[in-house]
Amino acid sequence: MSRYVMGIDVGGTNLRCAVIDGSNDIVDRQSVRSHADQGMDVLLSNLLSLINDVRKSHDLSAVGIGIPGIIDSSSGVVTAAPNIANVKDYPLRRVLSDRLGGGVEIVIENDANAIAVGEWWKGAGKSVDSLVLLAIGTGLGGGIILGGELWNGADGMAGEIGHTTVYPDGVLCNCGNYGCLETCASSVAIRRMVSDGLKDENIVTSLRGLTTQAHKEEIPYIAMKAAEGGDKFALAIWVSMGRALGIAVASLVNMLNMEMVVIGGGVSNAWDLFIDSLKTEARKRAFPAPMSRLEIKKIILGDDAGILGTAYLARKKLNELKS
Amino acid sequence: MSRYVMGIDVGGTNLRCAVIDGSNDIVDRQSVRSHADQGMDVLLSNLLSLINDVRKSHDLSAVGIGIPGIIDSSSGVVTAAPNIANVKDYPLRRVLSDRLGGGVEIVIENDANAIAVGEWWKGAGKSVDSLVLLAIGTGLGGGIILGGELWNGADGMAGEIGHTTVYPDGVLCNCGNYGCLETCASSVAIRRMVSDGLKDENIVTSLRGLTTQAHKEEIPYIAMKAAEGGDKFALAIWVSMGRALGIAVASLVNMLNMEMVVIGGGVSNAWDLFIDSLKTEARKRAFPAPMSRLEIKKIILGDDAGILGTAYLARKKLNELKS
Repeated sequence: MSRYVMGIDVGGTNLRCAVIDGSNDIVDRQSVRSHADQGMDVLLSNLLSLINDVRKSHDLSAVGIGIPGIIDSSSGVVTAAPNIANVKDYPLRRVLSDRLGGGVEIVIENDANAIAVGEWWKGAGKSVDSLVLLAIGTGLGGGIILGGELWNGADGMAGEIGHTTVYPDGVLCNCGNYGCLETCASSVAIRRMVSDGLKDENIVTSLRGLTTQAHKEEIPYIAMKAAEGGDKFALAIWVSMGRALGIAVASLVNMLNMEMVVIGGGVSNAWDLFIDSLKTEARKRAFPAPMSRLEIKKIILGDDAGILGTAYLARKKLNELKS
Repeated sequence: MSRYVMGIDVGGTNLRCAVIDGSNDIVDRQSVRSHADQGMDVLLSNLLSLINDVRKSHDLSAVGIGIPGIIDSSSGVVTAAPNIANVKDYPLRRVLSDRLGGGVEIVIENDANAIAVGEWWKGAGKSVDSLVLLAIGTGLGGGIILGGELWNGADGMAGEIGHTTVYPDGVLCNCGNYGCLETCASSVAIRRMVSDGLKDENIVTSLRGLTTQAHKEEIPYIAMKAAEGGDKFALAIWVSMGRALGIAVASLVNMLNMEMVVIGGGVSNAWDLFIDSLKTEARKRAFPAPMSRLEIKKIILGDDAGILGTAYLARKKLNELKS
């Protein structure tokens, strides 16, 4: 059996991958277009090309694939994925296995779960056995490591911390629930808070002018810059996000007594604007003993976290099959 | 090494214990007064008497002890326990080990964690690998079994589901947080909802007369009977408790994707009055796939759950030491 294992991150735009050798060092990287917005057939064809291309130079034993969405990792089925057009209950592991032929193990995992594994394996959580990962981007993805293992639940669907309720009578979430953490802490949440606030003509803020011509994707960045420049309305938005995160972190601490929270995702670049309110709120609410031992860290592997995480899971699957 | 292991439940009133043999069958039971309200010295002396008494007839290898409160099970320290007068950071495992001499392993665990283990081992959760236990009594205790193991966290303090926030701006909890699940689902919560409601003179309810002379401990039972008799105000209280539980269960499902919720504790006797609103609320909020597979069951071992759970944990500790 070869020593080479590949991890792939399926983004809306790119498929990024890394190949690791038997010493778990990265020996190859590639990035190609995913065209996931053209549906699963196109994505599948691009995945196969990428994997077959890598196989020309490396004798792969296993491939791990991280996908944003609801993934049944126990059966390797993509239940739903916002970036892949029209996908529903697609048995990706089976289809890929059939098309690749024998000898390559496939692991499919939710992207945030993969990031949690990567950060625990080689990143911010290297020294701990338990952590919760919050990936704050368009939405809020989560991953839970307990006792040095990814906890992905009975159907591989665990870790959806973005869809735990923070404000029961809060804003309607994409998932159908009200007041999910994601509705308070994500780029979608920041945009909503900006646009709701601007409806009130009494609010004085630089965002009124700055956002008029802006593309909606730019608004969280503009809100970050405005807050850094002292705009009180913009600052309050980040404090409000920190408060919601703090409420969720306190509940997690009381429930899981984990050692660390690792925070990543594009929105986490506004770290200094929300971290104090997050900590203040969590300390007010959590039991003192488990809270005092909690470390809260930034993700350190960046874009490599998910790729390394899926590679780790693929390697682990191989080892389990061997034993 | 002997085959006998003992499990003890430390209640405010009684110490109840069972001895299990190598086949894990109960071969002896005892119940003595705990006098925990007289403080740790008295409780310790009663624990030692009970254990030494049992040792006369059974060669004990290990003792598991379940205690309501904040227990650092990794170090065997009772951090805080509401039923034991003036206890704070008491190293119960070390003291008991010293006083009992060698040859008897001691395991200290939170009582609800012990119930979770017992119900998973021999009760409602026998067929599953993951469950969340909610013990709804004076407060709301919780325990989490994942992958066939108690998850008790980095300091042995995990499982405090009663102290996860349901309503961030809700009622002040004993723990210092606002809007904990325990403030909405416990006998304390039922009493508060009754007394708050009765302050409104426009509310017509049989509870106004029924509770005037009642001892406060009786009020949840009176509220149950009134609701069963069709009293709308009383019914609404149980529905409100069910709603809060449903919000928490939905978050747990999205986060942990566990197979089962097991509900016990005295307040759970009002099952038919809150279970529908619990399920309705949880289904509205949780992802459909992990929610549809969730079973919600009543505890089935009753008072034996905690004793068997601690006995199991004591046996497990022995096996770990042997291996």
